[in-house]
Amino acid sequence: MLYLIGLGLGDATDITVKGLQAVKSCSRVYLEAYTSILTVGKEALEEYYGKQLILADRDLVEQGADQILEDADVTDVAFLVVGDPFGATTHSDLVLRAVNAGIPYKVIHNASVMNAVGCCGLQLYNFGETVSVVFWTETWRPESFYDKICKNRTAGLHTLCLESLVTDFRGKKIYEPPRFMTVNQAADQLIQVIQRRKEEGMTEDTVCVGVARLGSDEQKIRVGTLNQLVSCDLGAPLHSLVITGRLHPLEVDMLRVNAEPNALENLHMIDSSTYTS
Amino acid sequence: MLYLIGLGLGDATDITVKGLQAVKSCSRVYLEAYTSILTVGKEALEEYYGKQLILADRDLVEQGADQILEDADVTDVAFLVVGDPFGATTHSDLVLRAVNAGIPYKVIHNASVMNAVGCCGLQLYNFGETVSVVFWTETWRPESFYDKICKNRTAGLHTLCLESLVTDFRGKKIYEPPRFMTVNQAADQLIQVIQRRKEEGMTEDTVCVGVARLGSDEQKIRVGTLNQLVSCDLGAPLHSLVITGRLHPLEVDMLRVNAEPNALENLHMIDSSTYTS
Repeated sequence: MLYLIGLGLGDATDITVKGLQAVKSCSRVYLEAYTSILTVGKEALEEYYGKQLILADRDLVEQGADQILEDADVTDVAFLVVGDPFGATTHSDLVLRAVNAGIPYKVIHNASVMNAVGCCGLQLYNFGETVSVVFWTETWRPESFYDKICKNRTAGLHTLCLESLVTDFRGKKIYEPPRFMTVNQAADQLIQVIQRRKEEGMTEDTVCVGVARLGSDEQKIRVGTLNQLVSCDLGAPLHSLVITGRLHPLEVDMLRVNAEPNALENLHMIDSSTYTS
Repeated sequence: MLYLIGLGLGDATDITVKGLQAVKSCSRVYLEAYTSILTVGKEALEEYYGKQLILADRDLVEQGADQILEDADVTDVAFLVVGDPFGATTHSDLVLRAVNAGIPYKVIHNASVMNAVGCCGLQLYNFGETVSVVFWTETWRPESFYDKICKNRTAGLHTLCLESLVTDFRGKKIYEPPRFMTVNQAADQLIQVIQRRKEEGMTEDTVCVGVARLGSDEQKIRVGTLNQLVSCDLGAPLHSLVITGRLHPLEVDMLRVNAEPNALENLHMIDSSTYTS
């Protein structure tokens, strides 16, 4: 059996009881190590599980899948993923290889940024398409994420922006140590697009939510205008940025809990039940 | 401290280790009992936790919040929610009352249908707005969910349709025992809209995914045309229906694992990298 086990978002104890039981029963346990990070490292997990972990980097997962699946028809193998196994990044390819080899697989789910972001007070129902914000370079400054945000906002929907985690986002085979985009950097890139395009859609006063280390004990949430978030310090990675769409009064009340001074002052009533910025 | 603890989607062991530790340390533990269900009941959870649970029905949560929060500034109180505390239904109101009363709160996240649905093979990135499908009556047949599905499909996005769980969806105060909408019923209502409107957007041949008891050991996934899903038996609740948008070839490969015969035969290549139905 191949177990795909979500580790959740915080530390070693964010694994589910079912997941922990599976880890303890497996003869080999891989830790997927290139799409996300926990606030604790491999050693802390090994100590907590009482088990050695095999780090699965991108090369191993993409080229060494046979190695991961070896004997998985007769023994149990676990593949651990931060968040949910089908969260921010899919591991469909590994699953398909297992299926094709006649190896049964089982998914043990957990929280991921895609659902845990609801704790900022915005309704998950009201999110549109998720976007990725990549690091710009001197010559490569894609703006497609901005178009998607505006499309969502036109439909009244919020947008979860997942920040770049790795630098090999263009399919390059040269792996550099991961860089983590901060909320400040994402907000700054957005403001540059806004200033260049001068279109409607969103402004520097649009209410946004910066989230850091979501789901961990060191979680930080800051609600402010895009302008305010350029300079607010959210500390260590991982960061995510949410651009609000139409806001229900209950969402506004929840945002207020973590809001910067005056962040919610410029909301406009759309009808008797919603606001926008 | 008020703990909001997600129970995940399957049975008692789908709670996280951190969540279980919190449950054991709390002096009162409430089980939110009107927005969702696990595959196990209150008694199974009580036995697993070694603790009595207080059922929190809608009245208690909406009118008796003070009771839930009583002494939570000096003792620990847990509020258990199937899925994630901020998943399909928000408990923002309880959180706001805690904040206003100066009671600290902590969220312990878990999987919810909003992220676990990724296991069907469709990328979470490519989902648009989530819609709710409510039970039609003789005189009340809202179609707004169909418009949202078409809007998502136009943008190439998949749609997660959450099926009705309760019957008091129009804010009535008469609570009937919960009825659970099946994938068949949701598909049937959709087909009625399609036949009445005769517009473009989606057809009876659009590829859909029926999901039952997501995240539990009895999980069932069926991929078929909307027409096929009207008659496929997915068994006990809860059910969800996903309407596909533009499909990446890897998504098609994943869907094939659970597909009905010929379900994916009528996909049309849009460009070199995507399909639609």
